Amino acid sequence: MVLVSTRNPLNIGAAARAMSNFGFSCLRLVNPYEPSFREARSAVGASELLASATEHKTVAEAVADCTLVVGTTAARNRELHQPLRTLAKGARLIRKQLTSGRVALLFGSEKRGLSNEDLSHCHWLLHIPTREEHVSMNLGQAVAVCLYELARDAKPSLKPQKIKPATASEVERITVMLFEVLRASGYVKPRSDAAAEEKIRRMVRRLNLSAEDAEVLLGMLRQIGWKLKDR
Amino acid sequence: MVLVSTRNPLNIGAAARAMSNFGFSCLRLVNPYEPSFREARSAVGASELLASATEHKTVAEAVADCTLVVGTTAARNRELHQPLRTLAKGARLIRKQLTSGRVALLFGSEKRGLSNEDLSHCHWLLHIPTREEHVSMNLGQAVAVCLYELARDAKPSLKPQKIKPATASEVERITVMLFEVLRASGYVKPRSDAAAEEKIRRMVRRLNLSAEDAEVLLGMLRQIGWKLKDR
Repeated sequence: MVLVSTRNPLNIGAAARAMSNFGFSCLRLVNPYEPSFREARSAVGASELLASATEHKTVAEAVADCTLVVGTTAARNRELHQPLRTLAKGARLIRKQLTSGRVALLFGSEKRGLSNEDLSHCHWLLHIPTREEHVSMNLGQAVAVCLYELARDAKPSLKPQKIKPATASEVERITVMLFEVLRASGYVKPRSDAAAEEKIRRMVRRLNLSAEDAEVLLGMLRQIGWKLKDR
Repeated sequence: MVLVSTRNPLNIGAAARAMSNFGFSCLRLVNPYEPSFREARSAVGASELLASATEHKTVAEAVADCTLVVGTTAARNRELHQPLRTLAKGARLIRKQLTSGRVALLFGSEKRGLSNEDLSHCHWLLHIPTREEHVSMNLGQAVAVCLYELARDAKPSLKPQKIKPATASEVERITVMLFEVLRASGYVKPRSDAAAEEKIRRMVRRLNLSAEDAEVLLGMLRQIGWKLKDR
């Protein structure tokens, strides 16, 4: 991660925090405006990362050991001399490259972005697909979005929680009990037809109950039914 | 986009900017700490969006017209009572739901995130896959990442859904009515705690009610409640 001519130290801190969130550790700064950036309070949880950031006079020096240099840009209408890729597509190429070497991802200053000189160090350019009418993102947010995409398919995601569904017999017990309660309450008339019962049965099936919820629901219905009879 | 109890107005402005970047327009705030948030300078290019944000006293009020309510959380170790999905997977479900109704995406305060009460209004929860050792993101960055993912593969979905889902206010009416019935029946003790109510609220959300079924269920509960009182 290379930040070029960043003005606001809070943005440097925010970038450091996002790097830490998504598992990136190497931050390089080319001519930051504020020498005090290392104290940026926005680097919540990433103060060590910020402390170990290196400062460089030129982009060339900052990216020297990288095998791929990618610039970020919002300006889609600017005359670009390099291939421009969307983040999703570019991230795939970057991940591939990362298996064999270092990759530098460059972000320019808040006002002007990367200069043509900065861009000339890049193999290709990356843009986050934003709305035509409002393309320019906050620097810290743009960094977070890029790193999220880079880490997006890298890690095995959390195991989804297994929800045990209710069995047909559990669901049917609820149906029967509900029907009893509705009869006792007068919602269902004494000599209602089969169609009414089927309608309720279908509705209970649409609830997609888990085994646990089915048990809770059955307990509720039992109590209500008991109370209704207790008159 | 619903921001709950946000402390720092700069984060509200940053959220507004990201919304504008990715094409979202409806911002709702539940009890923001600083009344001055509408002047937040971080809303670069999104001042109109920020000006049109609405303020609400409760989560229930803010999400009333939504058919899906999703909470965001960093706390993977907290005991969660709802399904937890990664952003990539959750975004797919949200996009699908957006073809038939409004979706509320909730973000909690910077310090504490969403409370258990806030979470009990949610159908399921979303997390951004961050590093185990540093899961907590800056609010503005988390918003940007979520909206980026939501807009990422945005293709007009041609498949119209046949079933109209119930809105949050309809679901909440059922929750309140069910709670009354359970109290009247003795299932819920007179001085039960908030946790009992939250548990029931979560269960009702898991039922995934259609608008039609919600109406039927409400009618049933009304009749039962009426009968229970008529003793």
